Amino acid sequence: MKKKLTTMLYGGDYNPEQWPEKSWNDDIKIFEEADINSVTINVFSWALLQPNENTYDFSILDKIIDKFTKKNFKIVLATATAALPAWMFKKYPDVARVDYQGRRHVFGQRHNACPNSPNYLRLMQKLVDKIAQRYASNSNIVVWHINNEYGGNCYCDNCQSAFRKWLKNRYQTVEKLNSAWNMNFWSHTIYEWDEIVVPNELGDAFGPENSETTVAGLSVDYLRFQSESMLNTFKLEKQIIESYDPDTLITTNFHGLPNKQTDYASWAKEQDIIAYDSYPTFETPAFETAFMYDMMRGLGNGNPFMLMESTPSQVNWQAYSPLKRPGQLRATEFQAVAHGADTVQYFQLKQSLGATEKFHGAVISHSDSTDTRAFKEVAQLGHDLKKISSDIMHTTTSAKVGILFDWANYWSVEYMATITQDLNYTKLIHDYYKALYNNNVTVDVIDIDSDFSKYDLLVAPLLYMVKDGLGKKIEDYVANGGNFLTTYFSGLVNESDKIYPGGYPGPLKKVTGLWVEETDAIIPQNKVTINYDDKTTCTGNLVSDIIRLEGAEAIATYASEFYAGTPAVTKNNFGKGVAYYVGTHLDDSGLAHLFKYLITKIRLSQLSTNINPSLDITERHNEKNTFYFILNMSNEPQELPSEFKNNQFIDILTASQPKTTLDPWAVTILKK
Amino acid sequence: MKKKLTTMLYGGDYNPEQWPEKSWNDDIKIFEEADINSVTINVFSWALLQPNENTYDFSILDKIIDKFTKKNFKIVLATATAALPAWMFKKYPDVARVDYQGRRHVFGQRHNACPNSPNYLRLMQKLVDKIAQRYASNSNIVVWHINNEYGGNCYCDNCQSAFRKWLKNRYQTVEKLNSAWNMNFWSHTIYEWDEIVVPNELGDAFGPENSETTVAGLSVDYLRFQSESMLNTFKLEKQIIESYDPDTLITTNFHGLPNKQTDYASWAKEQDIIAYDSYPTFETPAFETAFMYDMMRGLGNGNPFMLMESTPSQVNWQAYSPLKRPGQLRATEFQAVAHGADTVQYFQLKQSLGATEKFHGAVISHSDSTDTRAFKEVAQLGHDLKKISSDIMHTTTSAKVGILFDWANYWSVEYMATITQDLNYTKLIHDYYKALYNNNVTVDVIDIDSDFSKYDLLVAPLLYMVKDGLGKKIEDYVANGGNFLTTYFSGLVNESDKIYPGGYPGPLKKVTGLWVEETDAIIPQNKVTINYDDKTTCTGNLVSDIIRLEGAEAIATYASEFYAGTPAVTKNNFGKGVAYYVGTHLDDSGLAHLFKYLITKIRLSQLSTNINPSLDITERHNEKNTFYFILNMSNEPQELPSEFKNNQFIDILTASQPKTTLDPWAVTILKK
Amino acid sequence: MKKKLTTMLYGGDYNPEQWPEKSWNDDIKIFEEADINSVTINVFSWALLQPNENTYDFSILDKIIDKFTKKNFKIVLATATAALPAWMFKKYPDVARVDYQGRRHVFGQRHNACPNSPNYLRLMQKLVDKIAQRYASNSNIVVWHINNEYGGNCYCDNCQSAFRKWLKNRYQTVEKLNSAWNMNFWSHTIYEWDEIVVPNELGDAFGPENSETTVAGLSVDYLRFQSESMLNTFKLEKQIIESYDPDTLITTNFHGLPNKQTDYASWAKEQDIIAYDSYPTFETPAFETAFMYDMMRGLGNGNPFMLMESTPSQVNWQAYSPLKRPGQLRATEFQAVAHGADTVQYFQLKQSLGATEKFHGAVISHSDSTDTRAFKEVAQLGHDLKKISSDIMHTTTSAKVGILFDWANYWSVEYMATITQDLNYTKLIHDYYKALYNNNVTVDVIDIDSDFSKYDLLVAPLLYMVKDGLGKKIEDYVANGGNFLTTYFSGLVNESDKIYPGGYPGPLKKVTGLWVEETDAIIPQNKVTINYDDKTTCTGNLVSDIIRLEGAEAIATYASEFYAGTPAVTKNNFGKGVAYYVGTHLDDSGLAHLFKYLITKIRLSQLSTNINPSLDITERHNEKNTFYFILNMSNEPQELPSEFKNNQFIDILTASQPKTTLDPWAVTILKK
Repeated sequence: MKKKLTTMLYGGDYNPEQWPEKSWNDDIKIFEEADINSVTINVFSWALLQPNENTYDFSILDKIIDKFTKKNFKIVLATATAALPAWMFKKYPDVARVDYQGRRHVFGQRHNACPNSPNYLRLMQKLVDKIAQRYASNSNIVVWHINNEYGGNCYCDNCQSAFRKWLKNRYQTVEKLNSAWNMNFWSHTIYEWDEIVVPNELGDAFGPENSETTVAGLSVDYLRFQSESMLNTFKLEKQIIESYDPDTLITTNFHGLPNKQTDYASWAKEQDIIAYDSYPTFETPAFETAFMYDMMRGLGNGNPFMLMESTPSQVNWQAYSPLKRPGQLRATEFQAVAHGADTVQYFQLKQSLGATEKFHGAVISHSDSTDTRAFKEVAQLGHDLKKISSDIMHTTTSAKVGILFDWANYWSVEYMATITQDLNYTKLIHDYYKALYNNNVTVDVIDIDSDFSKYDLLVAPLLYMVKDGLGKKIEDYVANGGNFLTTYFSGLVNESDKIYPGGYPGPLKKVTGLWVEETDAIIPQNKVTINYDDKTTCTGNLVSDIIRLEGAEAIATYASEFYAGTPAVTKNNFGKGVAYYVGTHLDDSGLAHLFKYLITKIRLSQLSTNINPSLDITERHNEKNTFYFILNMSNEPQELPSEFKNNQFIDILTASQPKTTLDPWAVTILKK
Repeated sequence: MKKKLTTMLYGGDYNPEQWPEKSWNDDIKIFEEADINSVTINVFSWALLQPNENTYDFSILDKIIDKFTKKNFKIVLATATAALPAWMFKKYPDVARVDYQGRRHVFGQRHNACPNSPNYLRLMQKLVDKIAQRYASNSNIVVWHINNEYGGNCYCDNCQSAFRKWLKNRYQTVEKLNSAWNMNFWSHTIYEWDEIVVPNELGDAFGPENSETTVAGLSVDYLRFQSESMLNTFKLEKQIIESYDPDTLITTNFHGLPNKQTDYASWAKEQDIIAYDSYPTFETPAFETAFMYDMMRGLGNGNPFMLMESTPSQVNWQAYSPLKRPGQLRATEFQAVAHGADTVQYFQLKQSLGATEKFHGAVISHSDSTDTRAFKEVAQLGHDLKKISSDIMHTTTSAKVGILFDWANYWSVEYMATITQDLNYTKLIHDYYKALYNNNVTVDVIDIDSDFSKYDLLVAPLLYMVKDGLGKKIEDYVANGGNFLTTYFSGLVNESDKIYPGGYPGPLKKVTGLWVEETDAIIPQNKVTINYDDKTTCTGNLVSDIIRLEGAEAIATYASEFYAGTPAVTKNNFGKGVAYYVGTHLDDSGLAHLFKYLITKIRLSQLSTNINPSLDITERHNEKNTFYFILNMSNEPQELPSEFKNNQFIDILTASQPKTTLDPWAVTILKK
Repeated sequence: MKKKLTTMLYGGDYNPEQWPEKSWNDDIKIFEEADINSVTINVFSWALLQPNENTYDFSILDKIIDKFTKKNFKIVLATATAALPAWMFKKYPDVARVDYQGRRHVFGQRHNACPNSPNYLRLMQKLVDKIAQRYASNSNIVVWHINNEYGGNCYCDNCQSAFRKWLKNRYQTVEKLNSAWNMNFWSHTIYEWDEIVVPNELGDAFGPENSETTVAGLSVDYLRFQSESMLNTFKLEKQIIESYDPDTLITTNFHGLPNKQTDYASWAKEQDIIAYDSYPTFETPAFETAFMYDMMRGLGNGNPFMLMESTPSQVNWQAYSPLKRPGQLRATEFQAVAHGADTVQYFQLKQSLGATEKFHGAVISHSDSTDTRAFKEVAQLGHDLKKISSDIMHTTTSAKVGILFDWANYWSVEYMATITQDLNYTKLIHDYYKALYNNNVTVDVIDIDSDFSKYDLLVAPLLYMVKDGLGKKIEDYVANGGNFLTTYFSGLVNESDKIYPGGYPGPLKKVTGLWVEETDAIIPQNKVTINYDDKTTCTGNLVSDIIRLEGAEAIATYASEFYAGTPAVTKNNFGKGVAYYVGTHLDDSGLAHLFKYLITKIRLSQLSTNINPSLDITERHNEKNTFYFILNMSNEPQELPSEFKNNQFIDILTASQPKTTLDPWAVTILKK
């Protein structure tokens, strides 16, 4: 068991190597003014640490670590392997990736290493060994940060060779591979492993990256392989660090909505603590950010996670990045805490003077001034976090609803060449999450390998790919009393993207008690009308399944098109539980109605019955206490929900009873 | 003279090699239930037939052919050359194409052979020889299907060398080539044949493929060369098959709207029967599909053609593919028959379990069930076709109007860098066709090398490129009493895309009796107003020619812009005939008015004078009978035109008099 | 001092080598009919002049020059180096460019030479030497035209090597380069010069060309280097010509709005006379064309420039190119003269029969007829120019307002990855220019190295990059009584794109008397409200700076958002002058109000106080006379401004008093 964090980290990425040493003390003074207690360092320093293959130079890093150790900051120490030095590309061109267009890259940018380059692997391990050996004994280091924001694919010859081995290991024989991928299609049958080529624009894949593919089984396997290849480099680094320092937490930072190149479910298993970089745009609705936090909590089995990056003001890489309004920073950073974060970290503590991120916001801006609204809000947040740290650290959240998010399924859905071009897995899952969020029902976003038994309701929209055993696992879950909900385009393919013959939803047919005769595509300007049993009417879009009941019963039917009168939403009693099937993509009011029904039927608990999408309402608790976070995620005042208008509640930030009207961006943390 | 088809084929692509042999009997039982009498096999089996260069394995194909021969199905046997095995790319990289971006491809997709690769040509011929030799004697084979849906260009060194030879043969000397292409422009003068490079993104062409080009003469010639190169591979296959089987029909399947890489006019000359793959989208108007069928009939000199592919339900590759509504399949498949098809074939008979087309509809769906609406409609259609086969087979259609469609002209028009970017040859031709279709005037879509003399009216919109002799041929046609209609942007260039100096429309000046002083570009949001002599007003778009009469007279004039009062539409008496010229792109009402005028003036026959775009009205006849097809191509009831409300007509499908109101998607075939 | 032009040139590009010699006389007869007195020849004749490396053939060019010399035309003789012969690519592939995607090109198009190819440089110099030697003594040659419309970048190894040397020369040591570009960012620190790679899609740059870049310092330097490389080739040609002919004007033609690959400020210093190719589209507002002419006048230090290309009718390469309306040609060509042109030249005198520009308009069209409206207008213009030539030639224009346009700044602004994606340097500058243009205030568009002292007002929107010394130069200008105006995003970076720390606008802080605390991004659908001191209200868009005054005072404040009440527009008295700062992008009415204020305050002179954007009003003068050009740039009649309704004015074209209502496209040139 590794050493847990003992206090909430407040800080973030700091790159003092970009400034003269004499300026560091001034920076630290400013950090302390804001109650910043932690720095993440050494993220992009490889070129500085190793001027050429035979020379290492730790002099600057030694000084930085020494400085922050003496000032007693918590250090998050990165391994500097996320961007390679220029000399390495010159000497070993194979360290560079070959892109989807088949082109070997040269030095530039970041995320630029081929994960199967022998030279990269050798030099990376040597560097990490030196760093780990040198600093392992420093007890101010509370987290090792490996690499940075992994992502991107490579299509080089080294990857191609490794992929062939990987496939041989997975399928054993070419006959099995031919069968799994249905290779008699379009004369694709292979006879030797080396007939397989990487799926890029010169081969079987085409169109913009990952958008079209002749053999989806091949393409999905390639993404699995690339994700594993990168994960292997992570594990190599981790083993080295643990050989010197077995006790300190090791992680890397997840990112994206979600990242498409890395299967975070498998990556999460290797992390000592989950870390996430959160960058909502100005128009990201609060529930989408919450969704990612609930995914991070889910990936960490419910344990608190690190908010490893966020911006103290603006970013430079979104289409538009307006200023956060007064109070907004506090609310958005507390949203992470409310959903399970035990750290609040920024990218970045000091704004670069040159290169592409120089307009990314920072605690210390180009003006070097602390006499700014932005800095004052950063400092205020530091004080707040210090105040609540001991109460909140290590508290957890209990959810009785799980939403499934599966990476291989995600990839497969987006590769699917089917009757509509509008499939967007993340967006469709979001719609389901949003209905629960608006009802203030606590949700875990979980992986298909999670333990389902603790959930009263399991929501699995677009469970297109159902790997071996998953159908049975769901049946067992429902038979034992669980409630399971799935939709159109579920149960279609196995993990090699091959159809389960005999009718959709394949391995879910039995539990849902139905099969799908055919599926209509609904063009964007159309809708199909749906009537619920209680006469509520709503609409569906995207597709509509024509459902043949085999035990299930309809709780809503189509009311338009030639299939008017046939089932649109069904329920099927199965063992002690119930399986629901939704044949079309319900609009917001349809989903709201469905969840109203489910909440009542399954008796799901709501933190408030007040429906106000501007309020983010969560709880974190430990054995002693429960803390309710009521965050106003809007620039307008909002009414405190009636559940909390109760003189038993004390706001731990103000040590007084909550106001009944929440100011714009107000943060209220109530303890009963 | 080859053996004609003796019965209407009903069936399509079937790939039993994707399933275990034991399932084949079940499939056949289902086919028989639907009166399916034919299968197209072996389309994509090269990799299965030849595991490596030295091994051929016909065991599976033997079994398949044996099975269907015993069951007495008509077999359409493909030569399997449309997609190459993976081992061939590994051993002979030159079989792969080099793309427009200059990149050599690797194994993947289909349509992947360079038509000038010596290795491809050698291996392809060897395979076809073995197949032809092995199965030539099987009398169940009624059609040989060479390759599949030819298309796509290659820009490799082998093609480059072959292209230089092709040019030398065409132009004899570099001086003539320099002159033909106007190579003194931009220092393009060449002195040796090997100074010519293929026109891709690295050379003289640029922008998205075929969109921009420095020397259009070069680019058009390259398309001619590529089309011929592919056609040569077709001819090589055909010769081999004929050496073993001189009596059976040989063809390949045309596709697209229309396909841009293959000059179907020259290809058609090599086909024993024209075959077409028809895939309208959900929003394709019925007349556009009819246009392609009339083109196929035209390409086959009026003989019946094969509808070689169509979908029994949905496709997987269009943006949206809604379900066909009840009855819609029957109407859309009968539309092909109504316009001259003697077969109704699907892609595909059984739905693949994996790879990119797995969601393409099929007679046997993933559910394996025949208890579906879709299957029942397929079976109903089978019964219908069986009923009418002996009546309809080999009947033909007489058209007195021809619309010219010329591939080199098509390419040149779309390459044209001119005063508007909105030139779309197919769309502009469609508009002319539509006006005739709506008037129920039977039309042949024909090539410039066709015999014009049988037509009362020849419509030639955008006859931009007029090859040597065509001007004279048109003059002769009109002088002998023909009516000829052409438009703006006609008669501009010769076959090397070089301007005819002395005023547009060049070789058509004399017959049209005018010249064009200048041409205005009309931006999309604008219109120009036109007044006809009879005071009818309409509008024009795209461009407007400022016309100088030299013998012609105006039948409509512009009524806006600074050229108000000048001619917009003219007629010129020439010999015994008349030539019409339309100086702008008339809107639908303008075209309707023009054709009303022409129908009256030329006394064109209409199958009905009732104008209803939802009805597709055609006739097919033989010496004994005439059959009128009245198809309701809409989801609404339509009135039967008065011409057919006549107790002399009997519907051969129902053996009773037609209903006066046609149901949605109703198919009525009347015999007097 | 070189020989000045003695008469207004009227003519343009003529490529007789595309036609048989016997046609030339006919062409000349037509030119003379239109008072065309000049031809630009030999622009794209390299392949004709040099059939292979060892053979030169001047026979055709000799004949052409002889012909026009005898006919006493002024000759603009091009050096033919803008497009390379095909044989050169075959023999020396390094003459071709490597594109942004990393691909070596082959023969094709034009603008196709790598400026650092030793073979290109050798062959180019040899050719120019031969041409210059041969024709230097011909006194009909009045201008040498080097190359043509320079532009486009190369990313080949030769360029890479030359770039490394260029950088070494600029930065001396890698340490200085690392610091200048902030290379410790993302592990970019380099140790050897050969670790630097060209910034294309395979390296540090990415996205569409020049749109995204990791190290803007690198990318901007690469553009500087490429611009200099091309300029070096120009200078090499010029030196050779001058060695034979030291007296005749030498130039090349600028183009674009403005061209992005060539820093015209540095190029202008090498031109004996500025030449510009002007191609407004049908929707380009008149002020934008005027802006470019005022830039050309500015680049030439106020001296008259050549309008070297323009179209007599339509172009073939814009989306839509409607006909010029009657009179429009005369107005648009006179607009150049009104803003300082001493030539009116067309591309082209005769329309090509083949290749991509065959539909580009010409004096002699494909019809070969002079009986056309277009030709008659060309001839009318020739007569007009002949009439005014002696009056107008060599007259100049006095502006008291300068607008800064700086190429490195332009590039940097467009590379900027910042809080909004909507930065468009040219568009934002246009908005400022337009406000002055509408007020009929004469403006020079000038370079940052210009002499500021002659201007009463210096307008510098988005002066993002402020190179060493420029801040001081501006301070001196203001201290000495100048009025300086700048905006948001000014004074941020030095010439290596590195931030000036300590607050924006960096070196302009002192002169503007303020600093910028933070900057809001305004999304396109939003606006921020602004109140001027006099209660006028307007709106701002794009961004809004939150301004902290340090001496300056607000003349307008924000009236919305949380920063309502803070300064939006400020003024700061500094020495004898005033510096203005505008914190947001004012809408048209806001800019109009600002300039009304400034015109009054600074007492700027207006040629008319009448605000009518359809009228282009300018003056040109010499010691004796002032000529007022009042052009109606619209298709509607416009009122003559009251200033010119005065019987002292005589129109030199009509020799009578001006009409009080100007016809559509009327050209009025008044002398008092």
